[in-house]
This record gives sequence, C-alpha cells and structure tokens, in this order.
Amino acid sequence: MRESALPATMSADAPELAFDEQSLLPVIAQDAETGDILMLAYASSEAVERTRETGLAHYYSRSRDELWKKGGSSGHTQDVEEIRVDCDGDALLYRVDQEGGACHTGYESCFYRSIDGEIVGERVFDPDDVYE
Amino acid sequence: MRESALPATMSADAPELAFDEQSLLPVIAQDAETGDILMLAYASSEAVERTRETGLAHYYSRSRDELWKKGGSSGHTQDVEEIRVDCDGDALLYRVDQEGGACHTGYESCFYRSIDGEIVGERVFDPDDVYE
Repeated sequence: MRESALPATMSADAPELAFDEQSLLPVIAQDAETGDILMLAYASSEAVERTRETGLAHYYSRSRDELWKKGGSSGHTQDVEEIRVDCDGDALLYRVDQEGGACHTGYESCFYRSIDGEIVGERVFDPDDVYE
Repeated sequence: MRESALPATMSADAPELAFDEQSLLPVIAQDAETGDILMLAYASSEAVERTRETGLAHYYSRSRDELWKKGGSSGHTQDVEEIRVDCDGDALLYRVDQEGGACHTGYESCFYRSIDGEIVGERVFDPDDVYE
C-alpha cells in the first residue's frame, strides 16, 4: 500500500460517503495493474476504516451479516493501492493487487461470464484446493 | 455493438439474474478499450432488455424512479460492446464505448476523486455547455 494514497487521517475536503439505508455502499474491486474488474461487494463504514488501516480490502457480507476480510479463508487477499469515491459519494472503487483469484469459483474475476453464459474469464485456481 | 456479444435471444445456459428487493441490479460501466471504470448505476429487467435491444446503455434511476437512457439529455451515450454477469448473478458489467464523458460533473469517470478528495480523473467537458 502506498502511504500517500491511504493516509490515516482524512483531509478537510474528503468526499462525504452516502451509505444506504442498510448503512452499506457498493464497492467495485479493480485490478490496479490490468484494469480488470474483479468483483462487486459492499462495505460498511467499519469495513472502509479497516481497509484504510490495514491496506487490505475489507467488505461487509450481506448474507452472513458480518465484516469480512477478503481472503480471510482462501488467502486470496487484496492489497489496496487506492480508494476512489464516485461523484455522489454512494459507491467506492478499490484499486487492488489481487493475490490468487477474486472469485470463489476459481476464476480471476467474478465477472467471468457474458450475459448469455459464454465463459470469458480465466480460471486461476481450483476451489477444492482452497476451501475445505 | 458486436452482434455476437448481444444476440436477441438468450441461450439455455444464460445466467439467471438475481434482482434485489427493488427489482434492480447494480451495473458497473467500464470503458471497453482503456479498462477505466466510468460509473456505477442500477438496472431493472427492462433496462437490461432495452440495452440488449438497442446496444445503448440503459439504466434505472432510483432518484427519478424511471428507466433512463444514458446520454438521453447530454448526448453522452454508451455503446455497449458486451454485458457480463457476476458469479451469483446479482451484478452486471457493461463494457462500453463512451461518447463524451460519463459523469454529469464533466469528468470522464464518476470515480474522479480519491477517498481523501484528491482529483485523480480527467475533465473532458464543461457541464454548463451540455446541460441547460
């Protein structure tokens, strides 16, 4: 993580974040080097703070209803190089260096299919080897 | 739009889309050539169908509560080259050729700021010239 991108304190003109009625924001994770979109997940205020503090991507799991460190069980962590905010503050972009693959299916990206079901992504690991 | 990417009929293994309780899905718009993330918006089933039919990005505006053709007032349309679906079918990716800029502020991308407020994006038009 670059210190300059994620300082510990926020400046006066830091954009205000507009969390939704569940106190969450959608977050796009993008490979900082290739530009590939890896996944879309959600973050709570605490998840954003943890991400900034640790430099590792944290999200909030809506299905498990808990703070979630990406790669906590798989080891496929995301080093966050930069966090960006959209114009109305209701979406975030994590620009990351992805360890292994982002998708639990073994693909590098969760967006590995076209809308017609054609496989367009690359499989980078076998989930049976990673998840018990 | 490439015919092969957006055929009029869906194949048997087309991924099922998991719309949320408002019957919407988040959609990431990505510049197909540069990989830049342009915006995050939402789509209804009808917005997805219109996008497929016309090859131009359609969304659903949650604030205006209506189907919305991107660039309808600004002329800054998005030619959709490909639509991708994520692993659990609850997010879409439009890979687009953006006319003008995606953001109503004049920036190419809505994600033109870091979380600390640093401007990292490029301004490509003056909103005063585009919106009346």
